[in-house]
Parts: sequence; structure tokens; C-alpha cells
Amino acid sequence: MGSPVVVLAGGSGGAKLARGLQDEVGGELVVIANTGDDVEIHGGHVSPDPDLVTFWLADRIDDRGWGLREDTFHVMDGLRELGEEVWFNLGDRDLALCLRRARRLAEGARLTEAIDEARRALGVPARVLPMTDEPVRTHVRAAGRWWPFQDFMIRHGAAGPVEGVELRGVDAARPTAEALEAIERARAIVIGPSNPVISIGPMLAVPGVRDALLAARAPVVAVSPLVRGQVLKGPTAAFMAYGGLPLSSDGIAAHYAGLLDGLVADERAGGLPTLETDVEMGDAAARRRVARETLAFAGALQ
Amino acid sequence: MGSPVVVLAGGSGGAKLARGLQDEVGGELVVIANTGDDVEIHGGHVSPDPDLVTFWLADRIDDRGWGLREDTFHVMDGLRELGEEVWFNLGDRDLALCLRRARRLAEGARLTEAIDEARRALGVPARVLPMTDEPVRTHVRAAGRWWPFQDFMIRHGAAGPVEGVELRGVDAARPTAEALEAIERARAIVIGPSNPVISIGPMLAVPGVRDALLAARAPVVAVSPLVRGQVLKGPTAAFMAYGGLPLSSDGIAAHYAGLLDGLVADERAGGLPTLETDVEMGDAAARRRVARETLAFAGALQ
Repeated sequence: MGSPVVVLAGGSGGAKLARGLQDEVGGELVVIANTGDDVEIHGGHVSPDPDLVTFWLADRIDDRGWGLREDTFHVMDGLRELGEEVWFNLGDRDLALCLRRARRLAEGARLTEAIDEARRALGVPARVLPMTDEPVRTHVRAAGRWWPFQDFMIRHGAAGPVEGVELRGVDAARPTAEALEAIERARAIVIGPSNPVISIGPMLAVPGVRDALLAARAPVVAVSPLVRGQVLKGPTAAFMAYGGLPLSSDGIAAHYAGLLDGLVADERAGGLPTLETDVEMGDAAARRRVARETLAFAGALQ
Repeated sequence: MGSPVVVLAGGSGGAKLARGLQDEVGGELVVIANTGDDVEIHGGHVSPDPDLVTFWLADRIDDRGWGLREDTFHVMDGLRELGEEVWFNLGDRDLALCLRRARRLAEGARLTEAIDEARRALGVPARVLPMTDEPVRTHVRAAGRWWPFQDFMIRHGAAGPVEGVELRGVDAARPTAEALEAIERARAIVIGPSNPVISIGPMLAVPGVRDALLAARAPVVAVSPLVRGQVLKGPTAAFMAYGGLPLSSDGIAAHYAGLLDGLVADERAGGLPTLETDVEMGDAAARRRVARETLAFAGALQ
């Protein structure tokens, strides 16, 4: 394949941009996804961000914003009938994917392989890579206690203020050979419009990733997750506040200080080349437009 | 509760008799079920015999002879879509039950507790106990190799001749306190019409169970799994042949030699009190009739 376009993605924002990029470059897209949100539950290994990306790339994402379109929830209903408090909801086909992944990992497969098998089975032309094969589990401190990430999001309702973030396991994690090769060979590296602290942060914290990005010949550009100064989805504001970062292009640029060659945002950042454009990606045309403009901007920065 | 009626049960035959007995004695019924067929699969802990009994007692058994009535199979469909060869089929609500059980066991619950929670959740008045809390896994030798029991049944099509049976783990297994207490306090002990070698055999092989049955004050009667000299379901014939036992009341009596006070069958056994009656249990009335006659027979043997 040609020189890849690499995008670092967390949840919905990064996944939407990846979908637009796939329209532009097809199988030359490589998505590196955050696995700090992974959780073992219901017998399965759930990788929310890689799966969200995969479902978007397969055009199978449900309108609710997560899970597979037209999935059913009979296993969760069954668990409730048995008296279980089901706080983490998984559709039946989504669960199948997570059960299969847990089995593959138990058999000794790398997470990279298990995630790749899923994207192939769903017919996705782009590659989807986990940030690492080792377990990293993001924990958030709020209301005076530490929460595993999904517990914070779902059971605690993602309620700030955020008092701390720990990426448990990250010191022992290593980027995969596949991710490092993609970064090295990339013609463009895009940091997706995902939560900088909690979605992109874990990827940059895996020892070796930041150095690989700095060493890459490709320009590194970020697409801002802020639309008209607002966060569209998720608790980005609470995490930006925790990081002492203003909710603005300058805040995004400060968070990625030293890493970026440019920013794509609807508001200029001081001291950083900015492509000023509408970064809302409400439909396929907008996703493709932002992708195309981002690639052109990265090309111009080369 | 009063002095219980204890039935030892494997699959369908034992479960049908248990259903009839539940009509007769309600919550005074205690079923001890074979767990040699248990299998960890799809992230769950599957206990086919205890579950079959529980589904029968809950009037939830599906017409196909296993699983829950009106269950769906979306997770299995999902696994197939992902390229998995699904050889062990589980409905979605059945899977929920097995996932919950696996989680409870991982949390440190005993199998006895996990199975009891399921029967309570399904509203079953009778108790359902596993033969042991320790793992026992029946293996069958056929066609020159050893098969885990479910592999033999499903992948090998239960094809005889049977060349060997191993109950792996049975030497380290112990009967539960609940099972021993039920046997000791029983007013009648009934060995259900299940495969004597592969369903009842593992229960009798758990160290301590045979002695407990012999020490019990209650009469022990078996209900023959043979109807007009034929096996209604499952590979009983191949296992009786492996055991060198004729497919007759005498064969059943010989298998349980020294243990029985009487046999319920449609053909007299030599040298053992026999209640000659139709033991086919094709409908609720027949199940209840066989149960009632068996209890009366046991009472007369007291």
C-alpha cells in the first residue's frame, strides 16, 4: 500500500473524521485508537473506542451513537431478569464481538490481531489498530474517589469536577510494531477531534508514541473537538478544566504543545498554523469535507 | 421444610420425572444434577443438566428439548458473522444465565449458589443442586481419541462405539453439604431415567455420594430410562454396551447393583422389587403419574 494516512482517534469525533478520511483514501487509512477505556464485562473484552471507529467505518454505527445498528439487547434483558443490575449495556451482536475478542485474547492473540479480525469481518477497508497490546486502564478521580473509566462515565454520569486521571498500566505498555510502522511511513498524521485529555492523552502517554510522532516525516495536525467553542459530546470540558486548559483553540494547542505542525479549527490558535474551517461533522458530506481539507492542509505543511 | 424427596437427574428423562415430582411434592423436591457435562464456552459457564432440569421445573423448556422457550440466537448469529464456527449453540437468554454464572463463580460463589440463584430467578419451587461444587469433566473415548463430553455429543455426533469414559477431576470432588443433607433427610431417593453410565454415573462416582445413598434411611429406587426396551433420547445404548450391560431392566439393575431397593420399569428385573408400569413421560399427566407411582412404590419399600 501507499504511504498511509494515520489518525489517532478516541470516540465519536475521531470516528467521524476517520469515516471521512476513509472516503478520501480508502484502505490507506490507519486508525490508531485509544484502549484506555477497555473493560472486561459480561464475559467479553469491550474495546469501546476501536469498536466505535470500526462500526463507523463499516457504516454500522447505530443512531444512538454507540453499538451496532439494529442490534437487539436480549442478553442484557436476560441478565436483568436474573436480577442483575446491568449498568454497562451491550447489544447482542456487539456482545458476540466482545466474547470472540475475549476468547482470542485468552488463546494468546494480541489485541491488535483481535481488533483486526473484527474490522475484516465487518468489511472495513481501513486498518484499526489499538494504541498498544498491553492493558492500560484509565481511572478518573471525582467526588473524592477513583473510578474505572466506564464507571465514571456511566455510573457517575461523567460528573465533574475531575480531580485526577491515572492511566494504570501505561508505564509497562509499548506501542505496537504496526502502529510504529504506520506512523513512520505516514504521509499525514491527524490527531482526531476526540477528548484531548482522556481519549488522545492515553495514546500519547504510551512510552514511545510521542517520540515516534516527533520523529515522523509526516506533518502532525490536530482537528479541534470544539465547535463554536462548545464540546459536542462527552465530558471534554471537565477534563480540559482539570488540565487547566481553556476551552478554545489555544487550549487545544497548549495541550498538544511541541507536537503539532498545525491545527484545524473554527477559531485561530495563537502561534500555530491554523486551518480555519467549520469542523462540525453532522453528515457524510461534512465528514468528507473536513477530511479532505485536513489532508490538503497537512500536505501544504509538508 | 418436611423430609425431602431427592431425585438424581441427568438430562431430559430425569428432568421430566423431576417436573412430575414437583407437581406432587412442590418445594419438598430436591434435584441433584450431573455437572460432568459442564463446559466453559462463549464467556459463560454452561451447566447443561442443572439448567435443563431448571428450565423443565420452570415450565420454560423449549420444544426443541433444550434451552429456554422463545429464546433468540442473536449472539450466536453475531459470532457466525465474525467467522466463528459455532458448534455449541446457546440462546441469548440462556447465554445471559451462563454469563452470570461464570461471573458469580469468578467472584468466588460456589456452583451450588450460582445454580440456586438461577432457579430462584426463574421461580422454581424445587431446589436444584449440582452433584459437587468442584469441576468434574466427563471425557469420552471414541474413534481412537478422547473427547470432552460436549465435543463427543455435538462434534462427534455421539457416535459409538464408546471406547472409554473418564471423569476428570472426580477424585478431588466432594458432594456438597446441601446434597448430603438432602440425602440423609430424604423420605425417598429416586434415581431418574437418565443415562446410567454418563449422567447418573458421574454422580455416583463423586467420593462420598454412594456411601451417603447406602447410609440413607430412605429407600432408593431407580426409574428405568428404557421404554419398551428402547432409549428415547441420547446415546444411552452406546454407553450401556460400553458397560457390558444389556439394554433391559436387568441391565439397569446390574449397573446400580447394591444400591437399589427397587426399580420402576415397564419390564420386571430379576432379583429386584420392580414396579411394572409405563415409564414413558410424553405429557404432564404421564410425568405426574410416573412420579406419583414412584413415590408410592418407594413408600411401600420403606
